[in-house]
Amino acid sequence: MLHDLFTPSVQHALDLVGIFVFAISGALLAVRKNFDVFGIAVLAEVTALGGGLFRDLVIGAVPPAAFTDLGYFLMPLIAAGLVFFLHPEVERTQTAVNVFDAAGLGLFCVTGTTKAYDYGLGLTSSAVLGLATAVGGGVLRDVLANEVPSLLRWDRDLYAVPAIVGAAMVALCIRFDMLNAWTSGAAVVTAFVLRLFAMRYHWRAPRAWNRRSSAREAPEKATAQ
Amino acid sequence: MLHDLFTPSVQHALDLVGIFVFAISGALLAVRKNFDVFGIAVLAEVTALGGGLFRDLVIGAVPPAAFTDLGYFLMPLIAAGLVFFLHPEVERTQTAVNVFDAAGLGLFCVTGTTKAYDYGLGLTSSAVLGLATAVGGGVLRDVLANEVPSLLRWDRDLYAVPAIVGAAMVALCIRFDMLNAWTSGAAVVTAFVLRLFAMRYHWRAPRAWNRRSSAREAPEKATAQ
Amino acid sequence: MLHDLFTPSVQHALDLVGIFVFAISGALLAVRKNFDVFGIAVLAEVTALGGGLFRDLVIGAVPPAAFTDLGYFLMPLIAAGLVFFLHPEVERTQTAVNVFDAAGLGLFCVTGTTKAYDYGLGLTSSAVLGLATAVGGGVLRDVLANEVPSLLRWDRDLYAVPAIVGAAMVALCIRFDMLNAWTSGAAVVTAFVLRLFAMRYHWRAPRAWNRRSSAREAPEKATAQ
Repeated sequence: MLHDLFTPSVQHALDLVGIFVFAISGALLAVRKNFDVFGIAVLAEVTALGGGLFRDLVIGAVPPAAFTDLGYFLMPLIAAGLVFFLHPEVERTQTAVNVFDAAGLGLFCVTGTTKAYDYGLGLTSSAVLGLATAVGGGVLRDVLANEVPSLLRWDRDLYAVPAIVGAAMVALCIRFDMLNAWTSGAAVVTAFVLRLFAMRYHWRAPRAWNRRSSAREAPEKATAQ
Repeated sequence: MLHDLFTPSVQHALDLVGIFVFAISGALLAVRKNFDVFGIAVLAEVTALGGGLFRDLVIGAVPPAAFTDLGYFLMPLIAAGLVFFLHPEVERTQTAVNVFDAAGLGLFCVTGTTKAYDYGLGLTSSAVLGLATAVGGGVLRDVLANEVPSLLRWDRDLYAVPAIVGAAMVALCIRFDMLNAWTSGAAVVTAFVLRLFAMRYHWRAPRAWNRRSSAREAPEKATAQ
Repeated sequence: MLHDLFTPSVQHALDLVGIFVFAISGALLAVRKNFDVFGIAVLAEVTALGGGLFRDLVIGAVPPAAFTDLGYFLMPLIAAGLVFFLHPEVERTQTAVNVFDAAGLGLFCVTGTTKAYDYGLGLTSSAVLGLATAVGGGVLRDVLANEVPSLLRWDRDLYAVPAIVGAAMVALCIRFDMLNAWTSGAAVVTAFVLRLFAMRYHWRAPRAWNRRSSAREAPEKATAQ
C-alpha cells in the first residue's frame, strides 16, 4: 500500500525531476574537470542514478529501476546536453541548481526509505538506505572525478543532515502507521527546507574535538583545493 | 538461443582473451604506480573482471561469472605474473597491448549486451550494460589507482564511442532478429577497428562549448598530471 | 552445518568486534583528513561493513547482513563517537588499534570464506571472497578518502598475505572435511599472528622486477605523501 502514496504518474514525475537536477550537478562538475562530452554524460548518469542503483542492489530489486525505465536513462543525457552547450548560463544560475538539488535530496531520501521498507527492510535500515539513495550519487560523482566527496568535508554546508531528518520522518510515520501523501510530502519539504537553510546560513557540522584550531589546518585546506 | 552465437568453447576462449588483455593494462598501471606484487594482482583482477561483475550484479546473475569460472580468476594472475617479471618488455610492446585492449573492448561490449538481453533487459538498457561491461573494469582500475578515469578525460583518444557503436549494432541486430555469429562478429570487429582508428588518428571527443581556449586550461592540465 | 562452527552468539560477538576495530581505523583516517562528524561516521560505516556488503552482493545474500542486523550498523557509530571525542587518545594507542585491526582481518577472512562456501561458491572463489571481505572495507575507506589504497602500496607492511593464508586454510579444511571450531580458530589466529609479525618486522612484498632502484622512486614517493 505504500506504493499509492502519490499516484504513480506524480511519483514518476517527481523521480524524473530529482534525477534531472542531480544529473545537472554531475555534468557541471564534469565541465569544471574539463572532461569531454562522454565524460559529461557518464558523470551525469552516475550522479543521477548511482544512489538508486546502490539501493536496488542492496534490496535485491534487480534489474534496478535505472535499467528498466528508459526515462531514467534519458533524463541525465538531456541534462548533459544542456550543460554541454549552455554551461556558462547554467553555472550563472548556480543558485537555481542548488535549489533543485535540494529538492532532489528531499525527494530521494523519502522515496528511497519507502522503497527499502517495501522490500522488507527494518525501519532503521530503510532510513539508512533512504539516506544512501539521496547522497550516494553525489559520492560516486566525486569519487569518479577524483575528489574528496563533498559529503565528507567539513568545509561544506550540511548535506547529510537534511536527508537524515527526511528519512527519519518517513520511518517514524511508517512506525506509527501514519504514512500517506501528506506526511511524505511533509518529509520531502522538511528535508528540502533544511538544506536551503543550511546553504543560506552556512550551517556546518563540527569536526572532531580539538581539531578546530589544529596546526594541520593549513595543509588540509590546501588539499581541499 | 542467443547463447549459441558461438560455440560455447569459442565464446569462452574469446572471453579469456579479453580478460587477459584487460588484466595486462591493469597490471601495467600498477607497475607504473609502484604497487607491490599484490597490488599488481589486485589491479589486474579488478580491471579484467570489474565490468562483467558490475553487469552480473545489475542483471541478478549471482554469483557472477567471475566467481564461478576458475579460468576467469586465474587469467589475470597469469597476466600479473608476466608483467611482474617482464614489464619493461611488455611496456615496449605497448602498441601490441593497445591492440589487444581494443580487441577486449570489442568483445566485451558485444558479449555484455547479449548477456544483458538474455536476462530480460530492454534493448537500450542491454546496450548500456554492454558498454558498462566493456569500460567498467578500466574505470575501477583508475579509481583504485587514484587517477581520473581515462574514460572521462578529453585528452585521451576515443574509447567509449567504439564500444557504444558495437553495443548498438548488437541491439539493432536483436531488434531485427538478425543476431547470429556473423553479425556479432561484425560488431566486435567494428568496435575493434574504430578503436584502432581512434588511437591511430588521435580522435578525440569535444569538450563543453567554449571550454576549448578557456583560461582554466593550465591548472586543469596540471591536475591531469 | 558450517554455521555451528561457533555458537551463534560467539560468532556474532566476534563479528561485532571485527566491525568495531575496522570502524575505528576508518574514523581515525576521517579525522586525519579533517572530515566533519558525518564524514567520520560514514567512513567508519564503510570501512567496517564494506567488505561484507560486497561479499553479500556477490553471493546474492540480499538484503546484506549489514542492513538486517542493527548491531552491525550501530557498532561503527559507537566507534565514530569514541574517535570524535577521544581521537588523540585513540591515536596514541595506535598499536592497540593495529592489533585489533589484525584481529578483524583474521576474523573476517575466515567468516567470509565460510559464508561464501555456504552459499555454494567453489573453494577457490570462497577463499577469494573471504580475502575480499577482509580487505574490501579498507579499500573503500581509502578510495572515499581519495588516497591510494594502502592494500596496493609497496611501502606498507603485508596486509593481504595474512588474509590469504587464513582464507586458504579454511578452504583446505573444507576440502578435507576438517572444518570445525578448532580449525577455524586456528585459521583466525594464524592470519592474526602473521599480520602482527608483518607489522613488527616490516615485512613487505616485492615490487615488480627492476623497479627497486628505479629513477621513478622519488616522484612516486612524493605522491605516496
